[in-house]
Amino acid sequence: MSDTWLPTLITDTPQEGYELAVKLARVAVKMTQADPAIRDDLRAVYAKDADALIAVSSVVATHFQTVAAANSYWQDLQVAKQ
Amino acid sequence: MSDTWLPTLITDTPQEGYELAVKLARVAVKMTQADPAIRDDLRAVYAKDADALIAVSSVVATHFQTVAAANSYWQDLQVAKQ
Amino acid sequence: MSDTWLPTLITDTPQEGYELAVKLARVAVKMTQADPAIRDDLRAVYAKDADALIAVSSVVATHFQTVAAANSYWQDLQVAKQ
Amino acid sequence: MSDTWLPTLITDTPQEGYELAVKLARVAVKMTQADPAIRDDLRAVYAKDADALIAVSSVVATHFQTVAAANSYWQDLQVAKQ
Amino acid sequence: MSDTWLPTLITDTPQEGYELAVKLARVAVKMTQADPAIRDDLRAVYAKDADALIAVSSVVATHFQTVAAANSYWQDLQVAKQ
Amino acid sequence: MSDTWLPTLITDTPQEGYELAVKLARVAVKMTQADPAIRDDLRAVYAKDADALIAVSSVVATHFQTVAAANSYWQDLQVAKQ
Repeated sequence: MSDTWLPTLITDTPQEGYELAVKLARVAVKMTQADPAIRDDLRAVYAKDADALIAVSSVVATHFQTVAAANSYWQDLQVAKQ
Repeated sequence: MSDTWLPTLITDTPQEGYELAVKLARVAVKMTQADPAIRDDLRAVYAKDADALIAVSSVVATHFQTVAAANSYWQDLQVAKQ
Repeated sequence: MSDTWLPTLITDTPQEGYELAVKLARVAVKMTQADPAIRDDLRAVYAKDADALIAVSSVVATHFQTVAAANSYWQDLQVAKQ
Repeated sequence: MSDTWLPTLITDTPQEGYELAVKLARVAVKMTQADPAIRDDLRAVYAKDADALIAVSSVVATHFQTVAAANSYWQDLQVAKQ
Repeated sequence: MSDTWLPTLITDTPQEGYELAVKLARVAVKMTQADPAIRDDLRAVYAKDADALIAVSSVVATHFQTVAAANSYWQDLQVAKQ
Repeated sequence: MSDTWLPTLITDTPQEGYELAVKLARVAVKMTQADPAIRDDLRAVYAKDADALIAVSSVVATHFQTVAAANSYWQDLQVAKQ
């Protein structure tokens, strides 16, 4: 994974921040299991497993907490609306 | 999920913040398992599984921590009451 | 759950803050499993399961971290005692 | 649990802060399973279960993070030593 | 592990910060299981286990939160681009 | 455990901070299971269990987050190098 996949934590909106958090959660799996075929097989399994889906959501939650703090919770958006 | 489902983290009250945290916890599952029929089947299972319900609550807790910080813990509500 | 169950995160004491954290941990279960009879059945199970009790305590710990930060760790209590 | 068991998060030393974190981790179990006999039976089980012991340590870690922040990481102790 | 493997938490980019988080997640395993042969055997197992891969990602997420805060979320990079 | 094992959270380097986090993770196990023989038996088991090793790493990650914040992320080291 030598290409630049994470240039910044700054996003324009909370929604983009959440999508970045989902990406951050997936990259660690990719760095631990580099074989895309195996990852696809695993995904077919955990995407139908309630416990695994909840665990994925937990990882996204931790990364979203990081990305939200990095973006000062996008409060500048709020100020712009007032 | 191209529509705008997360315009802001700012809510008027802690209770709305908690409801946003529940939504944040669910969206990652939706983004991982896009098939609503499968999600409904899974929900019927985990909604009767104590460990899964506790795990869901844990994800909500992490997101609520993020939303609460984003709203400065709604302290302005407290000031308004004094 | 339309009634107001979370007006504020501010509590007078750390102990009330901990009790609020326990409530915050339980509400997500209630919002995921609305049937009180099922919740009671589940509670009878997990209240005798060490792993589940530890997992409940973990959710309370995350919420207590949020509530404690919201109350600036009740440091004003400490100042009042000096 | 009507008695005052958590008057403050402030402790004199990091070690007392860690002991408070252990107590905070145990009280949620007590509030969920009020029967001391059942808790003792469970303790005999999880105290010999590696996964459960690690999970207990995880709850203590979250509470210790809260208590350490509440005490500004006991940095005043450090200043006093210089 | 007497050599210096963690001189600093400061990295030039978020991507290097993420790679440091992956390293931080692995070192605790190394300090708990010093035998490289056993670690390799275990890796062959968990690298094909969805739950384990998600759990690894969760540890990376916590460390990345720490490294990101240590680097003030690399906001200086953002300023430099403006 | 009446001896002083945690005089401070302040360490000279990130690496010492990480080693302190590993110690903090182990003490809760020791305070829950005081019998060293049982702990050694358990260690022989979990040190060969991928899930348990990942769970240990997760506890270390939470404690390291606390210790890193306590040391302001050792940024003074960085300043000293410039």
